[in-house]
Amino acid sequence: MNPENPLDNVRIVLSHPSHPGNIGASARAMKTMGLSSLVLVSPRFFPDREADVLASKAVDVLTQARVCTSLDEALSGTVLAAALSARRRELSHAVYSPSKAAGILLQQAQQKPVALVFGGETSGLSNEQIIKCQMLVRIPANPDYSALNLAAAVQVMCYELRLALENSVPRESEFEAASFEEIEMFYRHLENVLVGTGFLNPEQPKRLMERLRRLFSRTRLEKDEVDLLRGILNSIRQ
Amino acid sequence: MNPENPLDNVRIVLSHPSHPGNIGASARAMKTMGLSSLVLVSPRFFPDREADVLASKAVDVLTQARVCTSLDEALSGTVLAAALSARRRELSHAVYSPSKAAGILLQQAQQKPVALVFGGETSGLSNEQIIKCQMLVRIPANPDYSALNLAAAVQVMCYELRLALENSVPRESEFEAASFEEIEMFYRHLENVLVGTGFLNPEQPKRLMERLRRLFSRTRLEKDEVDLLRGILNSIRQ
Repeated sequence: MNPENPLDNVRIVLSHPSHPGNIGASARAMKTMGLSSLVLVSPRFFPDREADVLASKAVDVLTQARVCTSLDEALSGTVLAAALSARRRELSHAVYSPSKAAGILLQQAQQKPVALVFGGETSGLSNEQIIKCQMLVRIPANPDYSALNLAAAVQVMCYELRLALENSVPRESEFEAASFEEIEMFYRHLENVLVGTGFLNPEQPKRLMERLRRLFSRTRLEKDEVDLLRGILNSIRQ
Repeated sequence: MNPENPLDNVRIVLSHPSHPGNIGASARAMKTMGLSSLVLVSPRFFPDREADVLASKAVDVLTQARVCTSLDEALSGTVLAAALSARRRELSHAVYSPSKAAGILLQQAQQKPVALVFGGETSGLSNEQIIKCQMLVRIPANPDYSALNLAAAVQVMCYELRLALENSVPRESEFEAASFEEIEMFYRHLENVLVGTGFLNPEQPKRLMERLRRLFSRTRLEKDEVDLLRGILNSIRQ
């Protein structure tokens, strides 16, 4: 981690990419904008010659890419993750523009790793994957045909991150953000307590946890706040 | 030409593209952002199956593409043309950012055709071609590797044009925000419950409510979410 360049702290996570050409083109898109940390979740083909060809002079990004088997593994250690989605979703997180999301991600990346998560070419990201992220990003597009190519979407987001970098004044955050693991443990704790109090019926959960995740995702919880919330949960008799 | 959509008045001109895949991917990039007018100057291969495949659902843009033998022909009828260039040039035009250039082009496109001109994959645009254009645009990039793929550069510029288009139209939020009164009632409810569970000692409140207010303030709570949170508070035995 190089604190001099927050882009080094931004992971590009591709979940289940099917075309190796898109992996290579994404690596090139990243490097042209100054990013280098590529994480692949269960790629269909990797390494692959087609990926190397499309990466052009960004083969080093492919060589250093990390391959994972789950999104949890890919997000481990991050303090903030943004999911890309073209679909409109009910009950979704607040939706950020690429520019707004890039600004927030870059600010956090001055301290700790963050991630941008892209789904596979055919089906995108599942709701289950999206609720693991704290932000949802939608690239403005033609309502009649909004399906950007995967590497093209990576290019747009990396471009916005570069703009955010060039426009940024280095700032210090006063507070330490909670990690992915700490936030997931809070949700598990909360769920257990809600089942204990009878508010949440495990037989009929009615998307309750999803709604609560959506609410708290917007806050980007701090370490101290997670401790505080868990203290409250511990004080509740069940 | 549809005066209701100035993007119809923006030509994407590719000069001497060598890879048909890039022509197809450019067509897709254009259509996802709402552009449709593609002009090819002496393409090496066109039409081509590879272009059709990469265009995905934007084959109509390829079908309607105009093929020319010179940049003069491609720019005929335009009132403004912007050339893309990654290289630094002596004695060049003033250099515009993608965002600034998109704003100017779109404004002109409300009246008359304008063009964005991209060079071929290997050598880009010649100085002779650039001086046919009125503006020079440089996409901010990594100084160590600034060579965006051709279709990726088209994607970035078309994205900026779409932003320029959408920024002129105000939009409404999808969710209803909770009112000041509703939020204050939630805090009072929360405080009572925390006193009831023993977590909050009214003799020594230790800024607990202040910290919780700070946390929830960042979310801009919605009406439904306040109802949900108060439902949870009601379920807690004290």
